[in-house]
Amino acid sequence: MNQGQAESVSVEEHVYALCQAAREASQVLRSTPAHDKNKALLAMAEALDSRREALKQANQLDLDLARAQGLDKALIDRLALTDERIDGMIKGLSTVASLADPVGALDQVREQANGLRIGKRRTPIGVIGIIYESRPNVTIDAAALCLKAGNAAVLRGGSEARHSNAAIAGCVKDGLAVAGLPDGSVSVIGTTDRAAVGALITASKLVDLIIPRGGKSLITRISNEATIPVLKHLEGLCHVYIDAQAQSDAMAMDIAFNAKCYRYGICGAMETLLVHRDRAAAILPALVSRLVEHGVEVRGCDTVQSLVAVHPATVDDWSTEYLGPVLAVRVVNDLDEAIAHINHYGSHHSDAIVTDSLTASERFMAEVDSSSVMVNAPTCFADGGEYGLGAEIGISTDKLHARGPVGLEGLTTQKYIVIGQGQCRG
Amino acid sequence: MNQGQAESVSVEEHVYALCQAAREASQVLRSTPAHDKNKALLAMAEALDSRREALKQANQLDLDLARAQGLDKALIDRLALTDERIDGMIKGLSTVASLADPVGALDQVREQANGLRIGKRRTPIGVIGIIYESRPNVTIDAAALCLKAGNAAVLRGGSEARHSNAAIAGCVKDGLAVAGLPDGSVSVIGTTDRAAVGALITASKLVDLIIPRGGKSLITRISNEATIPVLKHLEGLCHVYIDAQAQSDAMAMDIAFNAKCYRYGICGAMETLLVHRDRAAAILPALVSRLVEHGVEVRGCDTVQSLVAVHPATVDDWSTEYLGPVLAVRVVNDLDEAIAHINHYGSHHSDAIVTDSLTASERFMAEVDSSSVMVNAPTCFADGGEYGLGAEIGISTDKLHARGPVGLEGLTTQKYIVIGQGQCRG
Repeated sequence: MNQGQAESVSVEEHVYALCQAAREASQVLRSTPAHDKNKALLAMAEALDSRREALKQANQLDLDLARAQGLDKALIDRLALTDERIDGMIKGLSTVASLADPVGALDQVREQANGLRIGKRRTPIGVIGIIYESRPNVTIDAAALCLKAGNAAVLRGGSEARHSNAAIAGCVKDGLAVAGLPDGSVSVIGTTDRAAVGALITASKLVDLIIPRGGKSLITRISNEATIPVLKHLEGLCHVYIDAQAQSDAMAMDIAFNAKCYRYGICGAMETLLVHRDRAAAILPALVSRLVEHGVEVRGCDTVQSLVAVHPATVDDWSTEYLGPVLAVRVVNDLDEAIAHINHYGSHHSDAIVTDSLTASERFMAEVDSSSVMVNAPTCFADGGEYGLGAEIGISTDKLHARGPVGLEGLTTQKYIVIGQGQCRG
Repeated sequence: MNQGQAESVSVEEHVYALCQAAREASQVLRSTPAHDKNKALLAMAEALDSRREALKQANQLDLDLARAQGLDKALIDRLALTDERIDGMIKGLSTVASLADPVGALDQVREQANGLRIGKRRTPIGVIGIIYESRPNVTIDAAALCLKAGNAAVLRGGSEARHSNAAIAGCVKDGLAVAGLPDGSVSVIGTTDRAAVGALITASKLVDLIIPRGGKSLITRISNEATIPVLKHLEGLCHVYIDAQAQSDAMAMDIAFNAKCYRYGICGAMETLLVHRDRAAAILPALVSRLVEHGVEVRGCDTVQSLVAVHPATVDDWSTEYLGPVLAVRVVNDLDEAIAHINHYGSHHSDAIVTDSLTASERFMAEVDSSSVMVNAPTCFADGGEYGLGAEIGISTDKLHARGPVGLEGLTTQKYIVIGQGQCRG
């Protein structure tokens, strides 16, 4: 009991020390030029490349432990560091190095009547805590994006990847040293004690933002317990609505098929298809048979069932993120019913309309309350890379600060700048 | 006991019903054209104008109760609705009506290689809960700004202003009706039961954002108890730093004097003055005597005390927001020391440098981690009106979402829009 308490205090002290070092590093990173940040990123890439064998050996320890513990195959697959994945991390670092530095950009600078020039200047957030699950490559992705945006990062990976993460952290630290950046700029919490997460998400004087990357239960737990703002990524219960004015049956079917089948497991995958009653008879039989051939189980409302052989959908289906080969389909009477369905049952992530009507597309964009609204494109495009962000730290389902795919800009904030020549007020 | 419980449940039900009505109204307001929102605002102004006597009578009830309860004079003054203050509310409504509608603006729209056009579209947040203290004019200011930004608002004023707020709410509701907008677009919680605040700040399925306007204890309590994002306005412990390269002693003195004396009680008032050691002897004796003549008590570090007769400053002075006629003064060795002092002791609100050095001003703007950074202008300019925002709902000391004075734009968010022509992924 006493020993447990002593250990727990020491975990917290360890985490606070890392956060304190990060806070100090953030003062330096706040105005570190892009050149130095890029130098560190490319040096990290070189370190990864030259230490492939050591990385794979460390990873082997994690894999052996995971197998010994009987962890499931999907998790073990995510955990594995292959040469291909090391190449991916190296490429990711060079991509982030090539992105424009968001820090220092001026926006909305206007001269007021009294001659003061007032505008906004983009600036780092400060210290960001990132909590993630088994994929060790997140260690590099998160470190790179935070650093490029001028933030210090404190990372807490899954305990099953601890040897891999420690080896990657070594490469990160070496890259920082090559560029002369503070060692505290990126820290990986080494202990697997779960108290470390609690300490990190309540270090409100030292950490400015928490980004959890993982399943819903992790995110929910962190949101509830954190005393620091949390950038959340919750469900993607995404819809495609085929409007009465869809340009062609073929386009509507292709978009719906792609939205469901590009990848079942991504948060932008369509989970419910809504079809205007005027197009249902023409589109649904052919689309459903294509989906079923592809291995998708289709569940339909009464009207859908009257048009084509499908499983019956219950009200629960409208609220379910399958993340798998299942699709709910509903026929609606009009655009109003489609929008109401999406706003009521959806998760405000990404929703699409297929239409050639300007009025319908405008209403859909204005009235659907989602982080991404697509017109004549499938929801599976919801992704920072596809959006031209270069890289993403996640997809925010929050409404404030950053919404949708979050890239470098979402890892910064803005301050007002006021430039005068001695003006006084009043 | 049983009665108390029954009452408490009914307060919560009352608040949830208002929030539910606001949620439904927000679906309409999301795409209400500016013309209709402005019509409502101007009709509210007309209602206030034509019902001055009723407003003043309602206010008299609050004033009588406040006097009977022995509330302090400053509070009673803030509570009073004079003709001048009613004129102020009317003018405020017409100002907000004249501001550009932020909703629907497109930003950063770019065509990707696959022909998808992707950008951001400004959109209302949804439902905003505002909790404020005795000034009844906040009822109008908050309602007007939220409505113009396309949000529904649920307002909870101080119990000491309940009759005034109810009378003002009547004018708001009439204005909504004239423009054909939902009655639930703006609601004022009528009950004075404190459980109403608890219900509002935990109605996380119905309310998107809480904005508390009031003292630090109110804001701290709400931040701790809310399960909804809170836009906070905490202290303004603001600094002016007179650099070695200040353009002239006169400009430096004028800026420092104005920063302290424009108004002691505003959050942008200077609380600590930092002076480079090379300029201290030339500036401090004259500046201190001007401040003392104006009634300001000056507390200085050892070096200041060696130059001019002042009270000694202790380390507590560096951390104190006086909001009154007291000023702490410290002599620093260089810009580094000034920036370190500000980032350590300040509240990250508004801080100014007086300098003619480009290098020093650039470093100050980059390294001082405050929501507003001024160059050659006093901190007391930190204000939405001065910044050209037209009106402000408050000054955010948060780093995320909105930072500094918050106007219409801070009451909105952005969604991604993706416009395709049938593109599919992969």
